[in-house]
Amino acid sequence: MNLDDLPIRDDLRGKKPYGAPQLDVPVQLNTNENPYPPSKALVDDLAEEIRRDAASLNRYPDRDALALRADLAGYLGHGLTTEQLWAANGSNEVLQQILQAFGGHGRTALGFEPSYSMHPIITTGTSTEWVSGAREDDFSLDVEKAVAAVEEHRPDIVFLTSPNNPTGTALPLETIARVVAAAPGMVVVDEAYAEFARTGTPSALTLLPEHPRLIVTRTMSKAFAMAGTRLGYLAAHPAVVEAMLLVRLPYHLSTVTQATARVALRHRAELLGTVDALRRERDDTVAWLRGLGLTVADSDANFVLFGRFANRRAIWEKLLERGVLIREVGPPEWLRVSIGTSEEMSAFRAALEGVL
Amino acid sequence: MNLDDLPIRDDLRGKKPYGAPQLDVPVQLNTNENPYPPSKALVDDLAEEIRRDAASLNRYPDRDALALRADLAGYLGHGLTTEQLWAANGSNEVLQQILQAFGGHGRTALGFEPSYSMHPIITTGTSTEWVSGAREDDFSLDVEKAVAAVEEHRPDIVFLTSPNNPTGTALPLETIARVVAAAPGMVVVDEAYAEFARTGTPSALTLLPEHPRLIVTRTMSKAFAMAGTRLGYLAAHPAVVEAMLLVRLPYHLSTVTQATARVALRHRAELLGTVDALRRERDDTVAWLRGLGLTVADSDANFVLFGRFANRRAIWEKLLERGVLIREVGPPEWLRVSIGTSEEMSAFRAALEGVL
Repeated sequence: MNLDDLPIRDDLRGKKPYGAPQLDVPVQLNTNENPYPPSKALVDDLAEEIRRDAASLNRYPDRDALALRADLAGYLGHGLTTEQLWAANGSNEVLQQILQAFGGHGRTALGFEPSYSMHPIITTGTSTEWVSGAREDDFSLDVEKAVAAVEEHRPDIVFLTSPNNPTGTALPLETIARVVAAAPGMVVVDEAYAEFARTGTPSALTLLPEHPRLIVTRTMSKAFAMAGTRLGYLAAHPAVVEAMLLVRLPYHLSTVTQATARVALRHRAELLGTVDALRRERDDTVAWLRGLGLTVADSDANFVLFGRFANRRAIWEKLLERGVLIREVGPPEWLRVSIGTSEEMSAFRAALEGVL
Repeated sequence: MNLDDLPIRDDLRGKKPYGAPQLDVPVQLNTNENPYPPSKALVDDLAEEIRRDAASLNRYPDRDALALRADLAGYLGHGLTTEQLWAANGSNEVLQQILQAFGGHGRTALGFEPSYSMHPIITTGTSTEWVSGAREDDFSLDVEKAVAAVEEHRPDIVFLTSPNNPTGTALPLETIARVVAAAPGMVVVDEAYAEFARTGTPSALTLLPEHPRLIVTRTMSKAFAMAGTRLGYLAAHPAVVEAMLLVRLPYHLSTVTQATARVALRHRAELLGTVDALRRERDDTVAWLRGLGLTVADSDANFVLFGRFANRRAIWEKLLERGVLIREVGPPEWLRVSIGTSEEMSAFRAALEGVL
């Protein structure tokens, strides 16, 4: 009796669970976490907040998370209000809720690959058909080709990832605006890494007032250094948030998650204070890798995609033997390294020099 | 521009968000919460646990929640192991993952109504077809008719709710065993209220060793008095848990949720110590309502369904005017009251006497 003997959905047969190996090694640069742990002041504040809220843990949480959504609106600015914000357990759940509302059997979603690999997984997991659009050889998105793909396939949902994962580069606002104008349905701009973008890169949030079918998703797992909290969110027209209320599982966001996210938002000066250091480290890493003669994608994120390696698996394994865990992800011949502390990046550089 | 102008799924059009009103009234007896808040000792322990775990909140949680699943196996007993336990954000998410693995477009799920109204909502939300089987007039399940319905419809998933919500009565183990034997696919026994069952009511957990297609779901929201934690779980054959790994969103269960649930499990003597008092209060409520000449369903849960009222809405509203919030749910002419503290039940009785 094993998994194959169970009547699972046909498209799940033979599949392996998604996810990078969770290995206990000295230098973990594989899942784009922020390497800086919260300060004692934040931890103390959180423990006291939990102490207060725990007194009513026998009661269900606020089903609509209104206070948290107000705080998220305040953080994003751009004139956004509580009615335009929605939150769930990680941006994965936000994306799944979007697919549940606007996708489903008989509908299609288009993305431009390589991109975040959960987009097609969540799409097909909701019985929505995935249509794979292409990026250029340098991973950029040709706006004319993107618009042509939208017009050809007329997808119910378009995914744009900016900055793109795993390649790292943000999209010009012009590209997003053109795709939104061409799209017959919803457009999701996944901005999980937006806070790391190079100076002068505008957010798709600036396009929201003009486009009621545009959804911008964010997360507290990356720049906010709160991967353990699992808090993703979106900003969109209030009608989009109403659609989320129709598909969200009741009480999906626990009292402790809502409280933890609100404490993190109060401490955002500290948490986002690490972003500049990570961007410098990222730019140094790009320059150093290029100095080795490697090909490196421009990065607006807290990771760098570099290559090309005929046998990337061998490189990945040899780095792991040296205690450095990076990610074997994206197109063949490329590897992705998350940006850690300067000590961790020194270890990465030393290990990679030893391997090459 | 409103919700109707957005390209939402056709079957969502005109729908209202699920959920009881969250009203701030003195006596809340509407969502089957446990009325007893956690003790100071539990709250202190939780705050300290969060303080420890928060130091690594910049990192993703254990994706497979192994320590929590081990603790849940230890709580359930019955020789269960970590490999047979799975947990998610409330049993709603557990049920959704079951549907995602074993349901989907072209597949069917059968339930016997009236029952937990999220079963059909989650079923259709995953593009699975819902088949509604019937209960008897007293809400019991005729085993021969249930087996006949399974043989007629050959559903991919059968839902059995024991104790049943909103009616309150548990199923005989014999009924569950007969349905499991007849079912061509998976059988889910939703035991959200199992800990409240009357003495001598066995759990479907006892059937697991014989039946690899049986899934028993539980929650910490009811007897465990942890509705704010949002922790649901299942016990089944290890292959079923492997199927869950294929459909779960990566890192679906946050560090704080895993920690809070583990603290609650450590304090289960306290938390489950309220169950006996609630069962006595429940039995007294059933007897008192019957003394009024009302019809009352036998209850193995922490709520009581009573009726029949030609205009139940009027009764519900008049109770609310008196500061008592119960639930207008289930078949027409019936109302459901959750079991609160003895003070809350006195208030309910006084209010209902005033209304009738």
